[in-house]
Amino acid sequence: MSEVRTLKVALLGCGNVGAQVARILLDDADALAARTGARLQLSGIAVRNIDSERDVELPRELFTTDADTLVKDADLVIELMGGIEPARSLILTAMQNGACVVTGNKALLAQDGPTLYEEADKAGVQLSYEAAVAGAIPILRPIRDSLSGDRITRVLGIVNGTTNFILDQMDSTGAQFADALAEAQRLGYAEADPTADVEGHDAAAKAAILASLSFHTRFALEDVYCEGITKVSAADIAAAKEAGFVIKLLAIAEKIDNPNGEGGISVRVHPTLLPREHPLAAVRGAFNAVFIEAENAGQLMFYGQGAGGTPTASAVLGDLVSAARRVVLGGPGRTETTTGYVPALSIDASTTSYYIGLDVADQAGVLARITHIFAEHGVSIEIMRQTIHRDAASKVESAELKIVTHRASEAALAATVEAVKGLDVINSVTSVLRVEGV
Amino acid sequence: MSEVRTLKVALLGCGNVGAQVARILLDDADALAARTGARLQLSGIAVRNIDSERDVELPRELFTTDADTLVKDADLVIELMGGIEPARSLILTAMQNGACVVTGNKALLAQDGPTLYEEADKAGVQLSYEAAVAGAIPILRPIRDSLSGDRITRVLGIVNGTTNFILDQMDSTGAQFADALAEAQRLGYAEADPTADVEGHDAAAKAAILASLSFHTRFALEDVYCEGITKVSAADIAAAKEAGFVIKLLAIAEKIDNPNGEGGISVRVHPTLLPREHPLAAVRGAFNAVFIEAENAGQLMFYGQGAGGTPTASAVLGDLVSAARRVVLGGPGRTETTTGYVPALSIDASTTSYYIGLDVADQAGVLARITHIFAEHGVSIEIMRQTIHRDAASKVESAELKIVTHRASEAALAATVEAVKGLDVINSVTSVLRVEGV
Repeated sequence: MSEVRTLKVALLGCGNVGAQVARILLDDADALAARTGARLQLSGIAVRNIDSERDVELPRELFTTDADTLVKDADLVIELMGGIEPARSLILTAMQNGACVVTGNKALLAQDGPTLYEEADKAGVQLSYEAAVAGAIPILRPIRDSLSGDRITRVLGIVNGTTNFILDQMDSTGAQFADALAEAQRLGYAEADPTADVEGHDAAAKAAILASLSFHTRFALEDVYCEGITKVSAADIAAAKEAGFVIKLLAIAEKIDNPNGEGGISVRVHPTLLPREHPLAAVRGAFNAVFIEAENAGQLMFYGQGAGGTPTASAVLGDLVSAARRVVLGGPGRTETTTGYVPALSIDASTTSYYIGLDVADQAGVLARITHIFAEHGVSIEIMRQTIHRDAASKVESAELKIVTHRASEAALAATVEAVKGLDVINSVTSVLRVEGV
Repeated sequence: MSEVRTLKVALLGCGNVGAQVARILLDDADALAARTGARLQLSGIAVRNIDSERDVELPRELFTTDADTLVKDADLVIELMGGIEPARSLILTAMQNGACVVTGNKALLAQDGPTLYEEADKAGVQLSYEAAVAGAIPILRPIRDSLSGDRITRVLGIVNGTTNFILDQMDSTGAQFADALAEAQRLGYAEADPTADVEGHDAAAKAAILASLSFHTRFALEDVYCEGITKVSAADIAAAKEAGFVIKLLAIAEKIDNPNGEGGISVRVHPTLLPREHPLAAVRGAFNAVFIEAENAGQLMFYGQGAGGTPTASAVLGDLVSAARRVVLGGPGRTETTTGYVPALSIDASTTSYYIGLDVADQAGVLARITHIFAEHGVSIEIMRQTIHRDAASKVESAELKIVTHRASEAALAATVEAVKGLDVINSVTSVLRVEGV
């Protein structure tokens, strides 16, 4: 434990996060050596263009465009290039050469995780990716290790800061989606092309990773139902607010027991109503949080910064130190284990509560006809509230009906809404939103 | 990975937590085997009295009063007896025999942790104790592993459910301490002899453990300044509430940089004012939460159930699975590392903000005399608010002065309060409370 060896660390990519990782490796070299029992020597930084401008000033001689050579000579490889190729091939090369790999590449993991996990097992090296979900928040390691003797039943995560910022803006200012998005772009919380965030694709990749670790089964992106926030209107937010809810884009992975057949795991991303007292409702701005329910542990929440170069670099370094400790101790590596196969359920088999807003005619018997349709489809109503709007002369202008259901399947709900739409007393269905935490 | 070996697990103690651990080991044997690669066979449960009543029905043949023999034949030992002896000797015996040990014994760790950690290192086995702090919340492993590449600067923890329940009751109902304590006892949240909880001793043991892991230095109970909640009055709570604060018993460990000399780590437990918007302020009832500030990660919070047999058993099992995985993989064990020595600071060297309530005479020049004393002692005032109470005839009955200071040392504050008390215009000092999170 006294003789200090040197481990060569190859860094692939030098963007926002990569530049901070390089800075910390150089600045904190002594502390990192004390904690791992090895000097972590940054052997090089592979980039596409050596002359690009970086957030941090770094020694020019570290940069190279030859990622392949750099990787083949490294004990530890940090992949922060993003995208599928060449990241995927470089990670495979690194592991085949016996290097442990740390990555933050959620898109690659969600698309081709199984290949990478298997290759890591085969090569006996560690593949770790704490930075891929919820930035600085230690969430994957607690799920994999701390909860390894428990059974997780449900995971609800606010895992995309851009959409949380936008929804928070809409909630606090009453802004429409387009205006809140523009504000987020102005402040640097949203990219010029915000598609991956606002359509939920980023959250869906994280949902696949969270579900895989939580339920010991490998889920891919195609197993995740995904609905973004582009259709959430200021009116939806206002209606939710009035009813005591807040709308959040949640990544959800939960175990569904189906008494009539095969149960499974529902993995989905969609705008969701949460009661304002729920711990996740207080997660504001660009912060992230993951709420976990486990059979023995009960309810847990992990909260922190979900993005940003420096916070995410903290997660990368945590993985790196753990991998280095493992190399120093000489034990074999091992990533997460999949111990069973549970099927991913389609969104139709998922069950949740729903909030439904209806613009209805003010006629006798309307409520009876609507509740009859709900009953027919086996969807139980928990709360129903009717608001009548009148003009100055007390003439009815419109009637609004707000319904919160008990848990129902997506299929039953969809059929109910279709049938309700067919009623002549319905002017329009103003919102259909899923509810959690009630 | 295909051949499954058996690891013998000895359980010492069968109280609240122990009984749940035994139940899970028996009920979930297959799932645990799949996750560890070994069958975890509960080889026996050592208790003082075999015929005591337990929360869970367990096979009688598992029980023994001969803890020593049980321990010597085990691969993994779970110590949940509590107290110092014989727990300490049994843990040492287990480690010397090559067994990994899982314990939830915070009192023992706080008193004699260094001996145990050293013995674990020497024997090359793992000693883990996630259950000792904040029950089910995975907090020690994230600090030790996930944040191992970062520098923690501050830890604020609500780590005692009993006192949090009592303070929460006082805050929501206006009750006095004694009444809230009686209610907590009635509901089973406080023990018949509540001393360890309400005097802060339990929180202090946890503070020592949190500080040791966060700052890579071994702190013992005697390094922790400890003040309980018995002196917190309904008036303190009301005054805090009016000023926008909530009072929590916090376990605090923070790095203090002293420009005039040696800095160090302040480890302390005391009632603390927190702004109501602070994430910790929302932690209600018997829940626990730990808030961490790190240089790179920024602010993180971990929230969940801090006590209870089943939640705490989840933490024990997580440690057990990790230890078993390590044994299966064949790597050497290693507990936390201490990489440097930083001194524990006395409470006098700690700095924090303070809230001071004064009952003052309504005379000209009072404010000037008080502010002069603060200035003389180098304590800077952030907010000062005077409230004059008048009777029906508009005659002044009393004048209240509320002061929130900027960060000051405990010594400077104490001297300031002493000097203020000496003023003839001061009727009484109604409260002196520490403030965090501003």
